Amino acid sequence: MNAAIISIGDELMLGQITDTNAAWLAQQLADCSIFCTEHLALGDDASRLSAAISRLACDPSLNLLLITGGLGPTEDDITREALASALKEELVEDPLALQQVKRWFSNTSLPMPERNRVQALRPTSAEIIENTRGTAPGLHAHLENTEIYVLPGVPHEMKEMFNSSVLPRLRGKSDVVIRTAAVRCLGLGESSLAEILGSMMNRENNPTVGTTASRGIITVRILAQADDEKHAQQLLDNTVAEVKERLGIYAFGEGDDTLQSCLVRELKNTGSTLAVVESCTGGMIGELLTSVPGSSDVFLGGWITYSNEMKISEVAVPRELFQPAAAGAVSEDVARAMAEGGREQAEADYALAVTGIAGPGGGTAEKPVGTVWIALASRARPTLARHFLFKGGRETIRDRSAKAALAMLLWKLRGCDDFSMIWKRTNGESVKTPVS
Amino acid sequence: MNAAIISIGDELMLGQITDTNAAWLAQQLADCSIFCTEHLALGDDASRLSAAISRLACDPSLNLLLITGGLGPTEDDITREALASALKEELVEDPLALQQVKRWFSNTSLPMPERNRVQALRPTSAEIIENTRGTAPGLHAHLENTEIYVLPGVPHEMKEMFNSSVLPRLRGKSDVVIRTAAVRCLGLGESSLAEILGSMMNRENNPTVGTTASRGIITVRILAQADDEKHAQQLLDNTVAEVKERLGIYAFGEGDDTLQSCLVRELKNTGSTLAVVESCTGGMIGELLTSVPGSSDVFLGGWITYSNEMKISEVAVPRELFQPAAAGAVSEDVARAMAEGGREQAEADYALAVTGIAGPGGGTAEKPVGTVWIALASRARPTLARHFLFKGGRETIRDRSAKAALAMLLWKLRGCDDFSMIWKRTNGESVKTPVS
Repeated sequence: MNAAIISIGDELMLGQITDTNAAWLAQQLADCSIFCTEHLALGDDASRLSAAISRLACDPSLNLLLITGGLGPTEDDITREALASALKEELVEDPLALQQVKRWFSNTSLPMPERNRVQALRPTSAEIIENTRGTAPGLHAHLENTEIYVLPGVPHEMKEMFNSSVLPRLRGKSDVVIRTAAVRCLGLGESSLAEILGSMMNRENNPTVGTTASRGIITVRILAQADDEKHAQQLLDNTVAEVKERLGIYAFGEGDDTLQSCLVRELKNTGSTLAVVESCTGGMIGELLTSVPGSSDVFLGGWITYSNEMKISEVAVPRELFQPAAAGAVSEDVARAMAEGGREQAEADYALAVTGIAGPGGGTAEKPVGTVWIALASRARPTLARHFLFKGGRETIRDRSAKAALAMLLWKLRGCDDFSMIWKRTNGESVKTPVS
Repeated sequence: MNAAIISIGDELMLGQITDTNAAWLAQQLADCSIFCTEHLALGDDASRLSAAISRLACDPSLNLLLITGGLGPTEDDITREALASALKEELVEDPLALQQVKRWFSNTSLPMPERNRVQALRPTSAEIIENTRGTAPGLHAHLENTEIYVLPGVPHEMKEMFNSSVLPRLRGKSDVVIRTAAVRCLGLGESSLAEILGSMMNRENNPTVGTTASRGIITVRILAQADDEKHAQQLLDNTVAEVKERLGIYAFGEGDDTLQSCLVRELKNTGSTLAVVESCTGGMIGELLTSVPGSSDVFLGGWITYSNEMKISEVAVPRELFQPAAAGAVSEDVARAMAEGGREQAEADYALAVTGIAGPGGGTAEKPVGTVWIALASRARPTLARHFLFKGGRETIRDRSAKAALAMLLWKLRGCDDFSMIWKRTNGESVKTPVS
């Protein structure tokens, strides 16, 4: 079974809001093994919407069309009219729908404004779907071989109506079962990863294997199809296992895993604690770690030593490192001193420290913007320090610095000591040979 | 001038990611007075994309088509092929593009994988657009009366290419002038705000005034149309001024302003410095402040005192406050002690401290999840402390806590002492009467 989704609203056309309804609906459909082949967003324009409904209903590869938005009581709410026009029908007032809209208002102790009466209109052959969260009833109609559902645009009304009235009618309609999985990777570019996966990424495979990149993390997405659930799950599991085996240490997690959730898990598993000392990341590593529920078991806290004075007074970085002739705030010596000072003071098993130049100002020929030193101190020395040169703007440099720091400890806990090699391969960052 | 936007990727069809590129591009087009009439998202399916390009290029009401995604080096990157098919042309290797892709790799000291060679392909009549942020060159072509630009799907590559290579060619192509502005507000719900703005929000107005809400911030969006730039700007400026007057202190900024950028600006204006002491926000306030370029002028740093021990050892919170009979970690006394201890130790003019229960665990009947205390210590006492009860999940509670903390100091610096009233009105948070 294949579906298309249409989202309606001028605010989408102006980019004033992002269409999150389409992604949510697509996810729900995928869980019912229904594929989406098209998401379309249109403005409040009845003739364009009517033409789109006709085009999609006539597409023989589609049999389901979901439309959200344009069901309000105002003049720019054009979906009822557009559907009627595509069906070549009149709009009629539905007595039950009128009752439902009136009841909504009486529940809020307000009289129904006359303008809301239009919400009880439906094309003659269409069926009304009750809205338990708002005034806009949904619609259900047929055109050619396509079932059409119209839902309100307000996300919580739409979701409730989809779950209670649409989903039960869709389940079991598909003759294939789809199962999906995601493997999260760090340290490889998309094309190196594609080389490693090789023919697994051929488009005609089942399961299909594809990649997407977002903020330094590459996600390998796997989609298996079969006639029954068990077979689909088996195909999926086999491919996930092979992807993970091929990617080795680069594949740090699955599903909703993040670097920070994996790191918190490894710290719990090993019964270790962590502190952070952050300069250019300004609290980002702490923020990421504490976004993980239960992180307080392993994360003790840290210091945002943004000024040199705080590096000296709070984590005992020697003042002489900031003298004109010395290495300066962004240097291996300072990163090491930050990590070691923070670890000792917090009495933690590990401490991560980051100092760098995130820009846009502050770069020099010797230390350009993007220069970052990351150090990892542990109860069992030696302290490790790595030099990175990240590309991109301030936010990218900070984000990659925080991720590199989390990854340094995650890989160490997983027994990989060769992570300098990993960084050499990722996104073209330069890496100095490990000093200790 | 009218445009359509196509976004490519199976991950969009599966709802695995939300299409943010289309909204961003639509905003940029609106700023050039180009209206979008359609956003279309398709999977990695060359024949569907080719059909869509043909359909849109033949639509006489459209003269611009922007396509993002599907330009990578792997087999599921089908955009080059689909464009060639819509143009009824062959793909040829562009020597300059090949040079650019090779140069990208040589800058990272890596050999170009053979598979990346396909990125240098273009339909015979198309022109290559250089990608300064990645390996995927863009494309520029003509079909019927439509100009087609193909950009990479990775947002930061797409944005850079749009700004540097597409935008300059689009400016001045439209015969109406559109000017847009955004006013950023905190402390009012969308419907209270709509009541205050009243008839300014009527749909038939010029300028139009609309609102969108995101993560506790409401944005009032104003769009003015006129025949010439001067008139459009005048209409816009008048409406922005009236919106700001009506919203008073609730309107904290305009355009790209954020709470943190406004706060850094006010601190610079008053020559003051700030430190933070964070518990449940775990570094988020520091991260937000240091996301602002130049924040090092006013932000000294801080402490992530996630464990009680760190609250005691690092910012001198009295140990007895954590005894069983005492107020406990999430309390007014601890918040005040954190703020005062941090301010004194950092020798800052101000310090913000946050302690709370972000959940999902840790709540009690007396202190449910969402209970947060925020304190603001200043060189000129007294220290202020406020109690909040935020709704939502862990991320929402942390986000709103960080924003409330930033807003407390921002409003204080702007001479508003009545901000407890503001918080009473926002999102149903409870607020205790200020204690000092």
